[in-house]
Amino acid sequence: MRRPFIGSFSFHRARRRRKKMIFRGTMRRNERGHLEIGGCDAVELARRFGTPLYVLDEEDVRARCRAYRAAMAAYAPGGTVAYAGKALLCTAVCRLMDEEGLALDVVSGGELYTALSADFPAERIIMHGNNKSPAELEAALRAEVGLIVVDNEVELAILAELARAMRKRPRILLRLTPGVEAHTHQYIRTGQQDSKFGLGIHDGRARAAVERALALEVVALAGFHCHIGSQILDLEGFAAAARIMMEFAAAIKAEYGFAAELLDLGGGLGIRYTAADHPPSIESYVRVIAEVVAGVAEAAGCPRPRLILEPGRSIVGEAGVTLYTAGAVKDLPGLRRYVAVDGGMADNPRVALYQAVYEAALAERAAERGERFTVAGKCCESGDILIWEAALPEPKFGEIPAVFSTGAYNYSMASNYNRLPRPALVSCYRGVADLFVARETYQDLLRHDRIPSRLRRMAAAAAGVN
Amino acid sequence: MRRPFIGSFSFHRARRRRKKMIFRGTMRRNERGHLEIGGCDAVELARRFGTPLYVLDEEDVRARCRAYRAAMAAYAPGGTVAYAGKALLCTAVCRLMDEEGLALDVVSGGELYTALSADFPAERIIMHGNNKSPAELEAALRAEVGLIVVDNEVELAILAELARAMRKRPRILLRLTPGVEAHTHQYIRTGQQDSKFGLGIHDGRARAAVERALALEVVALAGFHCHIGSQILDLEGFAAAARIMMEFAAAIKAEYGFAAELLDLGGGLGIRYTAADHPPSIESYVRVIAEVVAGVAEAAGCPRPRLILEPGRSIVGEAGVTLYTAGAVKDLPGLRRYVAVDGGMADNPRVALYQAVYEAALAERAAERGERFTVAGKCCESGDILIWEAALPEPKFGEIPAVFSTGAYNYSMASNYNRLPRPALVSCYRGVADLFVARETYQDLLRHDRIPSRLRRMAAAAAGVN
Repeated sequence: MRRPFIGSFSFHRARRRRKKMIFRGTMRRNERGHLEIGGCDAVELARRFGTPLYVLDEEDVRARCRAYRAAMAAYAPGGTVAYAGKALLCTAVCRLMDEEGLALDVVSGGELYTALSADFPAERIIMHGNNKSPAELEAALRAEVGLIVVDNEVELAILAELARAMRKRPRILLRLTPGVEAHTHQYIRTGQQDSKFGLGIHDGRARAAVERALALEVVALAGFHCHIGSQILDLEGFAAAARIMMEFAAAIKAEYGFAAELLDLGGGLGIRYTAADHPPSIESYVRVIAEVVAGVAEAAGCPRPRLILEPGRSIVGEAGVTLYTAGAVKDLPGLRRYVAVDGGMADNPRVALYQAVYEAALAERAAERGERFTVAGKCCESGDILIWEAALPEPKFGEIPAVFSTGAYNYSMASNYNRLPRPALVSCYRGVADLFVARETYQDLLRHDRIPSRLRRMAAAAAGVN
Repeated sequence: MRRPFIGSFSFHRARRRRKKMIFRGTMRRNERGHLEIGGCDAVELARRFGTPLYVLDEEDVRARCRAYRAAMAAYAPGGTVAYAGKALLCTAVCRLMDEEGLALDVVSGGELYTALSADFPAERIIMHGNNKSPAELEAALRAEVGLIVVDNEVELAILAELARAMRKRPRILLRLTPGVEAHTHQYIRTGQQDSKFGLGIHDGRARAAVERALALEVVALAGFHCHIGSQILDLEGFAAAARIMMEFAAAIKAEYGFAAELLDLGGGLGIRYTAADHPPSIESYVRVIAEVVAGVAEAAGCPRPRLILEPGRSIVGEAGVTLYTAGAVKDLPGLRRYVAVDGGMADNPRVALYQAVYEAALAERAAERGERFTVAGKCCESGDILIWEAALPEPKFGEIPAVFSTGAYNYSMASNYNRLPRPALVSCYRGVADLFVARETYQDLLRHDRIPSRLRRMAAAAAGVN
């Protein structure tokens, strides 16, 4: 068949572009035309593990861990990359992060418990939280985690008291709010001055807390922490925060002689949810921050603190795919075409929460794009829409729509709304699929249900037993 | 002490108004000044069961069930009140609804399983869902539920096939979209034409489905269903939908001779989240709908179908209170005063999801109102705010803020975000507090976690075991 060169060229370029638009990490269209993730056929995965199914492209996760560590080694030697567990945490993910040599940021007693249960080394755990309970602080002290990030003065006082009683001397960071507004959704913007998190640099609370911490024998102040927000797609905000934080550290050095050993600038690097997102590279993100810190430190004649970064989404986000089974297609002429799937806001609340936009493909026909469909969930709620406008070929009943970039804040935010059991999570790595989280059963839904005897008696009476 | 009559009068009136603003159902300020729910001291409840804690005012739940049944008996004799389980479902709530003589609306296999496990009579179960799986339809057929509400043509075909194979003849309703836009948040508006739910009346799909259903020997068409939305605070939309639905039923009677035996107009009656909400009474809601249906039926010379209503939120919503423990207060002069609590968007995602507004009081000082506080959750996310502007006296560390009207769509939508265990749910009734749902433990969080051997081996190697 003859095909003119130009046409052929643009055809191939268009195909490449389309593939690029949809596939992430190791994903590709295999010889059967199916979506392949980590060397595993997605149609087979759905058959073997059922749907909805969270799938993790482990090679991609590991590659991103390594990209972070390589960038840190290159631009901020001695620095630490701590995986932010709130994005996606289970014991196997802890093991994975340990294997990749990352530290781990946990935000609650439950996350700490998970990490310790997975034998994650406590000295590489950073304990976060804007409102840690005394019990959580105690657990962190008992485990001797590497760092506790203190959010406020009350917490500092409680921690000091506990440390005294337990004869521990925790290394701490103080969480500061640099007053930077990141360009992102308002819900996930945490560094501005009006924040539930941290101690303001501008209003003097940060300085006062430093004085207090330095005066406390039972805690070892190691440096400062900030986090300006999440899913941030430009580097300006990060650079601005790094500058303010390092200037603060330099001012503290000048005034109190205390040189921060650590500067933890949190996480927040955005990912590609759709082709419209153009996140900076991990390498440029680390480089820009490291350069600002180094520059300010040098100008101030202040020792350069070791850098800590806490990526979550940018490690696991694009590596996640959720597989669903298609139900009925509903064609409302002039209005919309819906395809219903067997999951929804219970396994991915981000669309309803943040108006998040996702892309999808059909696992059986991975390269086909087709027309616009609204991918509707099965929850009894109009807002349960996964994608308002997905470019999909018309899904046949029983085919497997795959929604991309669901690795972060999907499993971790999943609910049993409508009493839907939460999906399994499998990690695919070099052709092998391993269960990281088993699927819930109907029995699991009842595990915590109790019927008081007064209601049981009535039941028995109604049944004629009593 | 002399007090002028007028002053005294307005003082008492103001106090009454304030009490009214905050307390619902049996709630009151007890002799210790504490919040009391169902005869139980909320401070004691927090001490005994821990926080966060979902508390249900069972007397109030029962009173609302009875108000619905009384209104139905008065205005639509023979009608059915079906509790919409998605608002709050556990086995004990099923028992409660059974005791109160309500039917039960379930929307998934998991809800059906819960109801059957609680010995809820199958013949009083209505099976819903916009995308029931074949397995869910099969379970509903096997249980011989009273009604299956068929969402679309594909589902009708699958159901017919299953019924044939299983030698069952299910009674069905067809879910229709009357094209009514309810005055409520866009996420919870389900009756308009562009909906993932049901069969359009305006585009002829409803009529076609009726023809198809009447032609099918294996299903018994009993009538029609619609649901126009949730948290609706005026009755106009309900009246409009009732009119359209009854007119449709009359037209079908005229054309096909099929007289709908049942007309299920769903739920959606709003509740009082704050003093700004003025929901119609249950009695007026039922009356208005019943009158419209009766009027249209009479005018059309058509038998009056038996009415079904499916309230969820308006039965359990105001009866729920969530108790938290206060952490640090953060005063940002000129900006905001935050009080952090030990729960948040994991146990109540409605604020982040729907910008829902709640009211709160301190359980220890139930009558004190005080100044504005922003009640912040403990999740590592800026959007984790429970109430942006709560009128509270300054909470001391360890005091118990109580958030009102959390009975619906709180426990049922709760997640383990940040690996926070989900709270317990206790029902308080005439001074006795019974556990309906036990609190999750850290161990529960790991129940489904699996570590594949390849990652375990590495762990053992790292620990020097291998």
